[in-house]
Amino acid sequence: MASLVFEHRQENNSAYMTTSPLDPDEEFRRQGHMVIDFIADYYKTIAKYPVLTQVQPGYLKKRLPESAPYDPEPIETILQDVQDHIIPGLTHWQSPNHFAYFPATISTAGFLSEMLTTGFNVVGFNWIASPAATELETIVMDWLGDMLKLPNSFLFSGNGGGVLQGTTCEAIVCTMAAARDQMLSQIGRENIGKLVVYGSDQTHSTLQKASQIVGIHPKNFRAIETTKSTSFALSPEVLKSTVCSDIEAGLVPLFLCATIGTTAVTAVDPLGPLCDVAKEHGMWVHVDAAYAGSAFVLSFDLLSMALRNPSALVSSLSTNPEFLRNKATDLKQVVDYKDWQIALSRRFRAIKLWLALRSYGVNNLRNFIRSDVKLAKLFEGLVGMDKRFEVVAPRKFSLVCFRVSPSAISKANPSPSDHDELLNGGKCVVNEVNCKFLAAINGSGRVHMSHAVVGGMYVLRCGIGASLTEEKHIAMAWKVVQEHADAILATMD
Amino acid sequence: MASLVFEHRQENNSAYMTTSPLDPDEEFRRQGHMVIDFIADYYKTIAKYPVLTQVQPGYLKKRLPESAPYDPEPIETILQDVQDHIIPGLTHWQSPNHFAYFPATISTAGFLSEMLTTGFNVVGFNWIASPAATELETIVMDWLGDMLKLPNSFLFSGNGGGVLQGTTCEAIVCTMAAARDQMLSQIGRENIGKLVVYGSDQTHSTLQKASQIVGIHPKNFRAIETTKSTSFALSPEVLKSTVCSDIEAGLVPLFLCATIGTTAVTAVDPLGPLCDVAKEHGMWVHVDAAYAGSAFVLSFDLLSMALRNPSALVSSLSTNPEFLRNKATDLKQVVDYKDWQIALSRRFRAIKLWLALRSYGVNNLRNFIRSDVKLAKLFEGLVGMDKRFEVVAPRKFSLVCFRVSPSAISKANPSPSDHDELLNGGKCVVNEVNCKFLAAINGSGRVHMSHAVVGGMYVLRCGIGASLTEEKHIAMAWKVVQEHADAILATMD
Repeated sequence: MASLVFEHRQENNSAYMTTSPLDPDEEFRRQGHMVIDFIADYYKTIAKYPVLTQVQPGYLKKRLPESAPYDPEPIETILQDVQDHIIPGLTHWQSPNHFAYFPATISTAGFLSEMLTTGFNVVGFNWIASPAATELETIVMDWLGDMLKLPNSFLFSGNGGGVLQGTTCEAIVCTMAAARDQMLSQIGRENIGKLVVYGSDQTHSTLQKASQIVGIHPKNFRAIETTKSTSFALSPEVLKSTVCSDIEAGLVPLFLCATIGTTAVTAVDPLGPLCDVAKEHGMWVHVDAAYAGSAFVLSFDLLSMALRNPSALVSSLSTNPEFLRNKATDLKQVVDYKDWQIALSRRFRAIKLWLALRSYGVNNLRNFIRSDVKLAKLFEGLVGMDKRFEVVAPRKFSLVCFRVSPSAISKANPSPSDHDELLNGGKCVVNEVNCKFLAAINGSGRVHMSHAVVGGMYVLRCGIGASLTEEKHIAMAWKVVQEHADAILATMD
Repeated sequence: MASLVFEHRQENNSAYMTTSPLDPDEEFRRQGHMVIDFIADYYKTIAKYPVLTQVQPGYLKKRLPESAPYDPEPIETILQDVQDHIIPGLTHWQSPNHFAYFPATISTAGFLSEMLTTGFNVVGFNWIASPAATELETIVMDWLGDMLKLPNSFLFSGNGGGVLQGTTCEAIVCTMAAARDQMLSQIGRENIGKLVVYGSDQTHSTLQKASQIVGIHPKNFRAIETTKSTSFALSPEVLKSTVCSDIEAGLVPLFLCATIGTTAVTAVDPLGPLCDVAKEHGMWVHVDAAYAGSAFVLSFDLLSMALRNPSALVSSLSTNPEFLRNKATDLKQVVDYKDWQIALSRRFRAIKLWLALRSYGVNNLRNFIRSDVKLAKLFEGLVGMDKRFEVVAPRKFSLVCFRVSPSAISKANPSPSDHDELLNGGKCVVNEVNCKFLAAINGSGRVHMSHAVVGGMYVLRCGIGASLTEEKHIAMAWKVVQEHADAILATMD
């Protein structure tokens, strides 16, 4: 009987299994090698593409069919389309001339480990679903904690522990939900509307997004103003007074996000004094070092978070569905990372950190960072030598924030009316000029920088850290900057 | 002056750039090809590993050093360690004998596209950061919408639109936060404690987790009981009465999660009637088809979500930091996906769906799914032919839920005391036997199945869908099941 069933199936099978989704011997190997070479060739020629894409909104719809193909297409055709239609619409984050936003660097080790993660494609929601994924993560998180000289209380060996999250926002959502539930268990859930979250006007926008997501009342989100006098770092005194007036108003301070390396100018908030204020009022402190920290990992989509008290996180995020029950969990012998993050499913991310640490070694990783910082110092030095520019915030890591100076603009443009505006804070004309200046630089396609507005000043951001960036690219970037400054100041005569 | 600076730097540089993080010509290519072959060989030999790892908690710490290496190690050494220390600790989700949980299949196309995503490593938070990433996503989401026969109002072409999320939980957190804010803007934020979320006792645990995260009062989460009479689908009548009593109690119905293919037994909730109840009370309906839908995409870490009214989502999740301001966004010409998800950063995920759709074509993708379903039917048929087993819930897709039947157990174990328990709902002994039965099957390492408890019954789940699974693996799984049934029933004599 059963045999009949099998024979019957054999026929049917062949009918439609024309293409196998996974054929290790043939197509997987052949196509895999093809894509490796495709990507290697992309890196080799990446400098020839405009760094900031020059396509217009809707460009791709005109080039692709209305619907998915009914029949298979060969990989050669698809890769040709990637070359012809996708690459022109990319902003080339891996270009050695990409200085915008923050470095989203890819490394050989990072790439290889993504292949392994994808190849194994294990779902490590709990220990039993793939012990290696969980155990390697706990091990490398302690390695990383050592490297970062974190207090032992943040390591598993010190009853704390670390977890790899996808992004800063996911990490903050998790810690804020934990802080919220911890506080509400003391003051009663009906008081959720009284909880207050604190950051500065330089804190990453994900703090506000996270507090929206976890249900903090929008009017209870504090983006405390920073000034040039503190290099745009959050002032403990101002935090203290803000917290006190909130308490007087009957509100409950919940959560402080301090930042090491802010988005706009990589300012560093004074952790010690800020933590004192937070401690005094029983607030949860989250330190966002996404920028300063990511340099270690050499890739995005991987963010490490270390906690002194993981149990608060777990009690807020844990679920225990029957289908995941297992002995190791019931006996509390293991970490189940599903309870340390938003999602249930999770990729084998630890292998990326492990492979990067081993492929380069702590020494080289530090050297990569030193090299980025030295290149930034070089660019900063060049800007400083040219009287037409000013560095608007002290360079802390490998980001240089600069602009065409008000004096250069007033020299080029001495008309009294504009002059008044210049004296009047100089904002209007100076910002306008620098905005055009950046647009011109990016329009050239030769380098890509981004901008920020701090203390009312529109500033250009030159962030160094792409894996392929060398000194010659810094020299070229400086050349582009000078040429466009010449041009824009000339037009003002 | 500048030239001096350059010369000076040249010397320093060479000193520590011993290993480059990314060397397209040499190491990237060489190591990339090596890892492709490593993974292909893993797939070729995957059937020889115990599907469910047999390692004990803490196995890896004994095998790895205390801290990260100071100096680089060759890729050959690292891959050897992956082979010797990581693979033994993996549960092999790609094994043709993996029938546990749900299929987390990898396909050649899925793998290649992950390589491209990682290789480009663009951060597509908004359109300008890489237009191709956003535009390809809007295009393939409409392709997918067509394939799934979604109403036009869920497509961009119909003023709806789709987005690729990482996981179900992220998707639900986003929609629930949007629903919450939409409702609170009508009834006042102080009423957040009155909002109620509805699912069934079969709804994925992430619904509860999501409602915890967005700040729904824990006592306002309803997991409505299901029964065998509805094949464990959520009953619209019971939903209606639950909603009505909540309203009488002064609460506010907010959100209903209906499921197509529940976790335990892939039950299908009756969408039409459930939506009628929800509509009547102004509730947001989220349809979770993570299981039934994922078959299309052939990979996890990629979840598509289509919305009829994206603006509610965007208004709840949008942030507009200065450093991301750009013309295309200001002119509202483009979609900025950062406002459709939790995280700011996002990978170029659309290329995965695009490449899978093109590499296999709609026809083959459907055939892959049909093939999985036919293999499941085959296994279901085999179970049905053996009187010792019973299929406990109707097979809807490619999951078979079965157990050793109470009658077989009472026949093997006629002692009166146990007999009473058997008559007494049969739970105790029967569940105990089936629990041991599954442990024995998984302990063999030859196949891996998981379990669920529905209607008080402990059931085995055989989920088919791994890319490498063929008919011969189903036959082998059936053989293993029969052998262990023989053994466990024999011990009861």
